[in-house]
Amino acid sequence: MLVRLQFQNVLAANVGAHGIPLEELVAAREEHASILEDVHLERRAGKHAFLDLPYQAEGAKEWAQFGSGVGRRYKNIVVIGMGGSSLGFAAIHRACSHPFANLKSRRAGSPRVFVLDNIDPDTVSALLEVAKPRDTFFNVISKSGSTPETAANFFVILEKLRKARPDTWREHLAITTDPDKGPLRSFASREGIASFPVPPGVSGRFSALSAVGMLPAAAAGIPIDEVLEGAREMDVASLQSGFDTNIPFQIALIHTLLARRHKSIAVMMPYSDGLSGFSLWFRQLWAESLGKRLDLSRKEVHAGQTPVVAAGAADQHSQIQLYVEGPNDKVIGFLALEKHRKRVRIPSDDASGELGYLGGTGLDRVLRAEREGTQVALTRANRPNYTITIPTTSPKTIGALLYLFEAAVVYAGRMLGINPYDQPGVEAGKKAAAALLGQEGTEDEKKALRAFLRPDKAHTLEW
Amino acid sequence: MLVRLQFQNVLAANVGAHGIPLEELVAAREEHASILEDVHLERRAGKHAFLDLPYQAEGAKEWAQFGSGVGRRYKNIVVIGMGGSSLGFAAIHRACSHPFANLKSRRAGSPRVFVLDNIDPDTVSALLEVAKPRDTFFNVISKSGSTPETAANFFVILEKLRKARPDTWREHLAITTDPDKGPLRSFASREGIASFPVPPGVSGRFSALSAVGMLPAAAAGIPIDEVLEGAREMDVASLQSGFDTNIPFQIALIHTLLARRHKSIAVMMPYSDGLSGFSLWFRQLWAESLGKRLDLSRKEVHAGQTPVVAAGAADQHSQIQLYVEGPNDKVIGFLALEKHRKRVRIPSDDASGELGYLGGTGLDRVLRAEREGTQVALTRANRPNYTITIPTTSPKTIGALLYLFEAAVVYAGRMLGINPYDQPGVEAGKKAAAALLGQEGTEDEKKALRAFLRPDKAHTLEW
Repeated sequence: MLVRLQFQNVLAANVGAHGIPLEELVAAREEHASILEDVHLERRAGKHAFLDLPYQAEGAKEWAQFGSGVGRRYKNIVVIGMGGSSLGFAAIHRACSHPFANLKSRRAGSPRVFVLDNIDPDTVSALLEVAKPRDTFFNVISKSGSTPETAANFFVILEKLRKARPDTWREHLAITTDPDKGPLRSFASREGIASFPVPPGVSGRFSALSAVGMLPAAAAGIPIDEVLEGAREMDVASLQSGFDTNIPFQIALIHTLLARRHKSIAVMMPYSDGLSGFSLWFRQLWAESLGKRLDLSRKEVHAGQTPVVAAGAADQHSQIQLYVEGPNDKVIGFLALEKHRKRVRIPSDDASGELGYLGGTGLDRVLRAEREGTQVALTRANRPNYTITIPTTSPKTIGALLYLFEAAVVYAGRMLGINPYDQPGVEAGKKAAAALLGQEGTEDEKKALRAFLRPDKAHTLEW
Repeated sequence: MLVRLQFQNVLAANVGAHGIPLEELVAAREEHASILEDVHLERRAGKHAFLDLPYQAEGAKEWAQFGSGVGRRYKNIVVIGMGGSSLGFAAIHRACSHPFANLKSRRAGSPRVFVLDNIDPDTVSALLEVAKPRDTFFNVISKSGSTPETAANFFVILEKLRKARPDTWREHLAITTDPDKGPLRSFASREGIASFPVPPGVSGRFSALSAVGMLPAAAAGIPIDEVLEGAREMDVASLQSGFDTNIPFQIALIHTLLARRHKSIAVMMPYSDGLSGFSLWFRQLWAESLGKRLDLSRKEVHAGQTPVVAAGAADQHSQIQLYVEGPNDKVIGFLALEKHRKRVRIPSDDASGELGYLGGTGLDRVLRAEREGTQVALTRANRPNYTITIPTTSPKTIGALLYLFEAAVVYAGRMLGINPYDQPGVEAGKKAAAALLGQEGTEDEKKALRAFLRPDKAHTLEW
């Protein structure tokens, strides 16, 4: 594999005062060099459990076997899970599958695949129309086992599944959750449902390479050993104490130093539709890991870049005007492919006049020129940007990309002095929602919330 | 219709120094009141042409007739267009159609619908696999008629279409472009292809309610007269010189005043999957219209909020940690439905213990509690947010929403003193891409670009 990071356009030499002076980058490297050693030692002591996920050979065998079994037997696979329970799988599946896989005629071992990651009743009922429970395998994923949206969808589906398959409904289910506790774990034990562990010490957004992402990937027909192999190859790079090959460390440095220069927005812009799922996965990873009120010394820092997802070349026609001319508050990360899977040639017959230059070339070449043209335009406007190139979209390269950014965000967390693994800021909203729904023991809170939410006529417009 | 804007949580009374003091809001209203009068007068003088699009009764009839004809005759409809040429249609289609429409069994008048808005060769070739040109109607859309990505895709498809239908290929096409000039216009005239105008004086991102969005909407089976009716109803609101019903003006005020308070990011967060297309449309509208280097007096201002798309409740599990605890640099706009189309009840049988509160309630109620809980959490953390509620997703309400934000962005442009209709910042990248692809007369530029893009070994990491 060859993953390449080109970062000259984040340097002051290319983008002026909005970039990083080379000497600052070199100094910061030295300053933070100990992070690599520290993480390495802590990993041996059992911290950073996610870093070892690509080495679960036995688990991988089990997931592949179980997954390919259900992939053969069912017409549809539905993953039910929120955030970290579904974004990793969705990223892998999008990168490794036919873009319109669900519309292709079925072959054995290639079921249709759906991700149910919301509770919009219009979506849920529509999904159950096109993926009838009687033909469908459901993988329910929640680390705690008590994620309300996941539970709500599961209860809805369970009722229909039991009705459709009164004797065999249990076979239509796999539950991925905490190995020991929580409502989903109890349910699986009580009913004898196939179940898989979310490994202890791994938060959802770092769990793509565990059963969380690998089981449904195997069911979707993806060779998960290759995904894990790609991650292992990147692990070697991220262990390098030499800086010259450690791409995750360099990414962390770039983002941290640019955040100090008021680049508060991190744009991820792949020039590959197959990486659109990766962008959404990155968006959670970056936001939840680095968006923190307190640093490790409990000082208020309100850290975190806001990750933004963009798609090249499409969003040149939507976002580039802002990126080039608006506030200089972004770092743009381009993702490029050395090679697309298909080659599509533009015929010369109709490409004449001012469009003549398109004739005879390939869509991949046009896509590349669009990306390079955008890089030039951004750099000339002093907007820092870097480019990561991977050979192509494949199980191996998506495994490497996931691992690359997981390592990068942990290094960045160290540089910022924050804890990348927790998410204390989501509790307040969760609790408020549960109270509003009448969770036992929250009656007082509910009353306070109702008062808070009372319509404020003076500050309401209606039409 | 009842569109409701609740804005108490953008006020200093609720979010402290991060919000707008009520007296400042009142003063700004008065200060900018003349904008309403000015736009009204200029509109009569033929400016702001997009504002009159909902009144094209004859056009609407023609689009409906032509569209429903092709909708009946073809198995697939493919829209080929970038940015403003496709995002408006995609927003309308997503709001008005079954979430998995392409997987449902076909009825007459309900073709499968695809939007081709990128030139990834893997996507293009996959699309042509599942939507065979012989069964497909293509609507090619480009205002200038020379958008390179649109032209490239069109040339690729044209060759295959001619081969598949040597005698009748022309019937498979409609071209929507400038009424008088450009390569697509010439092609349509020369070959006798059905064609429709992008109205003069309307930039792409304001063109959803013209043939650009309405023709494919009609082909997809959407009652476009209702879309236009919704827009007309909102037009009445946006004409109100009274502030008490003018939602677009109020939205413009809120965003402008919060931008001054360093809320540089505008999050659009619908709690409805059907509005996901609307969010992407909004993202272009807000970014391209307000992201400007120069104001009208040619002063460098680098204006513009960065629009960010989020999905409730899904992104509570991805972005809310950052929104609640990270930098206080956002205004969050919630979109809510009074009523979803379907009702899905959560059965009580399995909802026990800590999840007992979910039993017997509806998914819509859970979704609502999640939104309200998130609003409370954000407000308590002093993060400004507002809520727009519409009755439901329908042709009429999506028409109203599009018009609402088009008017709002024009008002906001006035308040910022910038031109919301141009996009000068996209030219540089476009030109560079064309030069890299060997466009005639750009040989010197190409040489310079190649030098600029030469790999910089010293600032490249490989693994």
